Amino acid sequence: MKILFSAPEKDWADYREVLPAALSEAGIAADLVREAAPGTVDYIIYAPNDTLRDFGPYTRTRAVLSLWAGVERIVGNATLTQPLTRMVDAGLERGMVEYVTGHVLRHHLGLDAHVTNPARRWHPAPPPLAADRPVTLLGLGALGRACAEALAGLGFPVTGWSRTAKAINGIRCLSGEEGLAKALRGAQIVVALLPLTPRTENLLDADRLALPARGAALINPGRGALIDDDALLSALDAGRIGHATLDVFRTEPLPRDHPYWAHARVTVTPHVASATRPATAARVIAENIQRSEAGEPLLHLVDRARGY
Amino acid sequence: MKILFSAPEKDWADYREVLPAALSEAGIAADLVREAAPGTVDYIIYAPNDTLRDFGPYTRTRAVLSLWAGVERIVGNATLTQPLTRMVDAGLERGMVEYVTGHVLRHHLGLDAHVTNPARRWHPAPPPLAADRPVTLLGLGALGRACAEALAGLGFPVTGWSRTAKAINGIRCLSGEEGLAKALRGAQIVVALLPLTPRTENLLDADRLALPARGAALINPGRGALIDDDALLSALDAGRIGHATLDVFRTEPLPRDHPYWAHARVTVTPHVASATRPATAARVIAENIQRSEAGEPLLHLVDRARGY
Repeated sequence: MKILFSAPEKDWADYREVLPAALSEAGIAADLVREAAPGTVDYIIYAPNDTLRDFGPYTRTRAVLSLWAGVERIVGNATLTQPLTRMVDAGLERGMVEYVTGHVLRHHLGLDAHVTNPARRWHPAPPPLAADRPVTLLGLGALGRACAEALAGLGFPVTGWSRTAKAINGIRCLSGEEGLAKALRGAQIVVALLPLTPRTENLLDADRLALPARGAALINPGRGALIDDDALLSALDAGRIGHATLDVFRTEPLPRDHPYWAHARVTVTPHVASATRPATAARVIAENIQRSEAGEPLLHLVDRARGY
Repeated sequence: MKILFSAPEKDWADYREVLPAALSEAGIAADLVREAAPGTVDYIIYAPNDTLRDFGPYTRTRAVLSLWAGVERIVGNATLTQPLTRMVDAGLERGMVEYVTGHVLRHHLGLDAHVTNPARRWHPAPPPLAADRPVTLLGLGALGRACAEALAGLGFPVTGWSRTAKAINGIRCLSGEEGLAKALRGAQIVVALLPLTPRTENLLDADRLALPARGAALINPGRGALIDDDALLSALDAGRIGHATLDVFRTEPLPRDHPYWAHARVTVTPHVASATRPATAARVIAENIQRSEAGEPLLHLVDRARGY
């Protein structure tokens, strides 16, 4: 079996040891290579920022296994007719829960005012309890659901919104266009964890950014293009949105002259929320190859029509 | 029945409405007063920073009910022979869990580097997962236990230390002098949640501050005097302790010229972690008066020998 690792050199450094270990642990004997004649490749492990764009010649390839959770760069590629899987790894999920919980608590507790307090202001006003801080999560996939449950466990009243109706114990679940306005209205903290599709691009536009409670915090560890950047900057300038913590952007790294860097109400984090951890991700890849060889359904198979 | 509310005016403003409501809800008919002839008082609701110091003349008083969790200012008062209770309210517990979880995640995720990033540095290095970040909690009372369980729920490996041996599911519990060194050794985040007693004063001295992992974070929402301040400043200067987030101090408000304010590795929060919430605290007071009248044991009764 020949497996092509089609990803930038930096990823190869992360995976060159853990992948062979995971494959061997799964009982898969394979050549893991960085280059190969297309007609000889059984599986492609793929990073969506790789240079490989024409999947047509890979006639023998039984699946393309993405190292990323977000596949919007590749899902519309007409040459990619092989089964395509997304990365859903336990490490990524735990990391996302930690990022979202940490930033929700940061906004909830007003930590920034203590981290930077040059006036040495001593004003002992305890924040409200989490029970009085409504949080809305946009997106209830594997990551959104795990975050919703962690936040509810800390006592936050959590509303979750998804395209199709879902039911999660302890979470107020809403769906569809009408549900979206209802989910956003009155929220004090909004977390965007949706996949990027033509339907979700610019989902957070001027109208929708006007729905949360005045001064609400927005946290975006999902995809940059979920937000209409100009509308967000206006909402921040007007104080309708009190703070935005953004981890993902239309262009990354975020250009040094982008207004987000300079805005007093914006915190930029450098795309660290949804990091796939090579050790756990390698096991997901190995399991999917094992399933494919056994004729079992692949995990995390992308639905091309839906876009994720 | 006469109940004396013996606390500063500020507390009266917080409690004057919620206390009568809680008493009435508990079926207690009482006069809640701000002044009374000592011999006529059945119960004293007491804040340890109040001016009342001589409890001798309160011969009819059946219990002194503290509004604070920490009773070190009053536990050694020889005139206080009436039963004394500490405040353990659900609001305080939830608020403490939120404070501790928020600051542990802040240190774990390295949030400060993003909150203040004038160089616009984009360095996408995801933090380790919580599973690889050992946290040690000193103190496993009601608050410590709730914090330990919340942190373990987020995936942190939690070690808890207490004076007497305890067992909590999912927490590595240690106790006694020997257990203390073991609990501190190698910890990457240490949270101090002990009561202040002659045995715990300056517990975190130079020797013990040398035990955690180099660069560990220390969070103190317990009592200021648990820490030897000079030893902590030395450990911070040397980088042995990487950061201290302190909520409580020997003198409060923390004097404007105190070195903690100016230290780059210290975050001062203004005693907000352990705020008693009047609405829930009033219900605890009412329940204890109800128990006392029914001849049942009081909740959260202070053990004078132990000091809390």
